[in-house]
Amino acid sequence: MSPRTDTRGSRRTILAHIRARSGIARVDIARDTGISPATVTTVTAELLAKGLVAEVLAEPDSGTKRGRPRVLLALNSDAFLLAGAKISNNHITVAVIDFGGELVADHVMPLPRARGTARDMADYVHAALTETLAPIGKDVADLASIGVGLSGFVDAESGEVHWSPTLSTRNVPFRDVLTDRLGVPVQIDNDANLAALAELWFGAGRGMSDFIVLTIEEGVGMGIVLDNRLFRGTRGIGAEFGHIKVQLDGALCRCGQRGCLEAYIADYALLREAGAAIGADQMDGTGAPQQIDSLIALAESGNHAAQSIIDRAGRMFSLGVANVINIFDPELIILSGERMRFFSYFEETFRQRLAQNIIDIDRDPARITVHTWEDLLWAKGAAALAMEGLTDRILQEPAG
Amino acid sequence: MSPRTDTRGSRRTILAHIRARSGIARVDIARDTGISPATVTTVTAELLAKGLVAEVLAEPDSGTKRGRPRVLLALNSDAFLLAGAKISNNHITVAVIDFGGELVADHVMPLPRARGTARDMADYVHAALTETLAPIGKDVADLASIGVGLSGFVDAESGEVHWSPTLSTRNVPFRDVLTDRLGVPVQIDNDANLAALAELWFGAGRGMSDFIVLTIEEGVGMGIVLDNRLFRGTRGIGAEFGHIKVQLDGALCRCGQRGCLEAYIADYALLREAGAAIGADQMDGTGAPQQIDSLIALAESGNHAAQSIIDRAGRMFSLGVANVINIFDPELIILSGERMRFFSYFEETFRQRLAQNIIDIDRDPARITVHTWEDLLWAKGAAALAMEGLTDRILQEPAG
Repeated sequence: MSPRTDTRGSRRTILAHIRARSGIARVDIARDTGISPATVTTVTAELLAKGLVAEVLAEPDSGTKRGRPRVLLALNSDAFLLAGAKISNNHITVAVIDFGGELVADHVMPLPRARGTARDMADYVHAALTETLAPIGKDVADLASIGVGLSGFVDAESGEVHWSPTLSTRNVPFRDVLTDRLGVPVQIDNDANLAALAELWFGAGRGMSDFIVLTIEEGVGMGIVLDNRLFRGTRGIGAEFGHIKVQLDGALCRCGQRGCLEAYIADYALLREAGAAIGADQMDGTGAPQQIDSLIALAESGNHAAQSIIDRAGRMFSLGVANVINIFDPELIILSGERMRFFSYFEETFRQRLAQNIIDIDRDPARITVHTWEDLLWAKGAAALAMEGLTDRILQEPAG
Repeated sequence: MSPRTDTRGSRRTILAHIRARSGIARVDIARDTGISPATVTTVTAELLAKGLVAEVLAEPDSGTKRGRPRVLLALNSDAFLLAGAKISNNHITVAVIDFGGELVADHVMPLPRARGTARDMADYVHAALTETLAPIGKDVADLASIGVGLSGFVDAESGEVHWSPTLSTRNVPFRDVLTDRLGVPVQIDNDANLAALAELWFGAGRGMSDFIVLTIEEGVGMGIVLDNRLFRGTRGIGAEFGHIKVQLDGALCRCGQRGCLEAYIADYALLREAGAAIGADQMDGTGAPQQIDSLIALAESGNHAAQSIIDRAGRMFSLGVANVINIFDPELIILSGERMRFFSYFEETFRQRLAQNIIDIDRDPARITVHTWEDLLWAKGAAALAMEGLTDRILQEPAG
């Protein structure tokens, strides 16, 4: 964490407030955030000078002397065009937004293959962006900033991908490869962090300073928002929910280690168990999502092996979530991701078990909400990442 | 976390720099912290007006025009007298410091009993402070702020103790009971947080913005420093290392839940296992510390049961530490506490196991240092807590 965090912190807090309440007076920013009026004046002057924020005039308050219109601040929507791309198993989803966060265009492009070199994937991202922008008469060069999300161990700060199911090699400077191919500044991050950013900028976390998003997709992820910003660990990687260990010398994970939470609740883990105890003739479908559906259907129809597989996943998931609560003591946990639809099957077990594993004090436990996602929301999270990156770059430039 | 965090953040960062480098020019604060010179000027003016900081004159730099002496800022040592008290199993340790952090007096008072009501414990703390202050001709009323540490689930923000082995009842407003008895503002916190504060203010963490302290005493604790301040979870409790779950439906913990890390590595857990497998005639001593020593001696002499007990403790400890690393990705972990002397016995197992459980990427893993503590350092941590509390109170008062 750089020593600049503090000043960035107040700028971020002020920008977040302007974003959340489009059209807000300086005096109200100071009152809502507790930041001193002097600092609010300095920071907003900087944001105006740099074009991130614009002044808008509002009707005067009835009590204002002489009825002069009030000057409010809002994000400068037209200033920049940004894009987010989420690389999934078999497609890339793109969202293009303006600087006010409004969706301008979106598109899904099938991926020729699920795994490739960084250069291959950069070509695919370029193609997906071009296909998205063509209908609105724009191209990649018109973008001010691009955010790209993928699953795996991603160092957002250095731009390296240490490991991802999407890339065929380890320790790739994927951000630089993308920036080089696209000709526009790129930020990268793992998909769980995108989910947290999407909640912070556009979803249930809007206006909340601290919350945690846990995702179940093909894998398991965690995004932590502390003080209005993503917490990525003190060195850029961290918050690795899927690879926290829930069992000493436990089940083998596809990352190569033993006892990871993913090794109990990710698609491959459930299907690995199903493969051992349930005949192939009883499972429908060939893709993982269909097979998971089939496993749930079997459990619902009373198949003991299927019930036992899902029950253990629920218990291990509750253990992992309990540890997150015991460490962060958050007010809100958002469970999200495409696979949350199978959460309802083990929700009761999960909540019972959770109560047994979180520290028992006389106070309301963390609120847990479930939020089923569509791919477009991930892409909007990637676009929010692009906005963060752009904002950081502009704020770091010397003032005008 | 309050919305004031950001402004407090820059004041804290600036104060931390002034503290760490006693005698520093404003221009150097701005350069070192990345905070804008304008903000540094505003904040230091406020710190001067409030008496927290004083100006001192230094020899002129050789290159300075006209050879005028430079004005440096330092903490105003004489401004306040503060005390920290750590309540242990059988004694209270007190440290009295000046506002510059220099130790003025210290003392250990035996506790008549290990457990009592909040009012009993407040009386004992009063007696311990009085005994410490008498030789320097002061009494409790001369203190500007008092920090008190104890083990358990302590909500530093609300001042409630939800559970502690020291107190005979749950959910006690212990801070208010202490403030009422002592007549001076009191802050309370759990002992692991004191250890982190002591490292931040006086120890290995001085000048580091992010690190984690893990303690093994009678129990197990964690203190997290993010951005120069203690992270206490988003709602005031959290960072409960001793009660993260390392085994589903595992060993029973004295907190009443199953599978807590403490239930595998705290004194009582080791001795519970020893009681089952090792004859009482083979164990020396009646107190826990002596019996732990005896257990280690048995393991060293080749007793398989004793080796197995300590080996499992080492493996479970490595699992817990690996999860902390996987979530926070810290640069430095400080292992501390009185029982770290038995760490050397399982250090090799611990480090091997750790490597198998932390996310495997091509980068230096977290540095782990071991720091054996004396009681006085805990008390100095409590005094640092008193300083934090005092500083926060003063900074919250309207300026001038």
